Amino acid sequence: MNYCSSCGARVALKIPPDDNRQRHVCDSCGMVHYQNPKIVAGCIPVWEDKVLLCKRAIEPRYGYWTLPAGFMELGETSHHAALRETLEEANARVRIINLFAVFNLPQVNQVYLMFNSDLLDLDFSAGDESLEVALFTQDDIPWEELAFTTIRYSLKFFFADRAHNNFRLHTGDIVRNSAGREFLEGAATKY
Amino acid sequence: MNYCSSCGARVALKIPPDDNRQRHVCDSCGMVHYQNPKIVAGCIPVWEDKVLLCKRAIEPRYGYWTLPAGFMELGETSHHAALRETLEEANARVRIINLFAVFNLPQVNQVYLMFNSDLLDLDFSAGDESLEVALFTQDDIPWEELAFTTIRYSLKFFFADRAHNNFRLHTGDIVRNSAGREFLEGAATKY
Repeated sequence: MNYCSSCGARVALKIPPDDNRQRHVCDSCGMVHYQNPKIVAGCIPVWEDKVLLCKRAIEPRYGYWTLPAGFMELGETSHHAALRETLEEANARVRIINLFAVFNLPQVNQVYLMFNSDLLDLDFSAGDESLEVALFTQDDIPWEELAFTTIRYSLKFFFADRAHNNFRLHTGDIVRNSAGREFLEGAATKY
Repeated sequence: MNYCSSCGARVALKIPPDDNRQRHVCDSCGMVHYQNPKIVAGCIPVWEDKVLLCKRAIEPRYGYWTLPAGFMELGETSHHAALRETLEEANARVRIINLFAVFNLPQVNQVYLMFNSDLLDLDFSAGDESLEVALFTQDDIPWEELAFTTIRYSLKFFFADRAHNNFRLHTGDIVRNSAGREFLEGAATKY
């Protein structure tokens, strides 16, 4: 950030009065430009023993498989965002059941909210952001071709819970460290 | 938003290629300036049969009582944000137990993530953003002097769950309509 989006003057990185961290501040009009994490909302669309995945037609991770998910927009609720992303990416209609996973990704400033859902019909197809959309049984999931760690853990937890017919909320952090990308359950991340 | 924060040129409100909604777009450098909802993270600090509340020393709702909560910052997890806000507003240390409530506020572009927590000691005091910090039993909660609807529902659900010793995740939308502010459980909001 170089310029004030309100008045167009140069901004400076400084700690504003009554604050304790650096912000982009406009010395001309006084505006403080806060930056905050974004929410990614998505769902696990289920049809019988299968899950709907989308093959990405956009970067990042072009050609890799993902669950329908994307940035929550202004004016939406998180479950509405999940419904919209599913419609946009897979031309698919789902019924949101409940919240299934909350993943913090502090290194990329995102929080994922993933919902359990039922696919309402088989009238789906690739949206503009997908090359292909298809249903997969657990055995057919392309585990090595998944787009994101969040998607891998969403599917892993989903199939584990389904095996015990005991769905619970999964919360934790997905962090990148020397061992790769790791899931730390609950409030496990140390500061 | 009037100016591009990257190059300082004027921005225009238009639908970018491959998008379906209006964004602030810079015709000079091409940057699309997305705006997204923010996360407010907080907790319900519990000590025996009491809950810690803070009397706000800042606007909005100066002088009204609230739970420790605030905007999640870059580089944080949601539970770290809740810990930090509790430390800043009440000089209090808590142990986060689990996620208790997810409230969508689509009209103000916020998602609240509220956690159950245990207050670790009684060494708390008013932080810079608080006039006063105190423990309240259920009977003593100043229900008519609470700062926000999110706080009222957090406390209402907390005491209801505690009465049955059955804490569960509460998800839903808080919307303003002709009847005032209302909580709609789960994925209830219609579009």
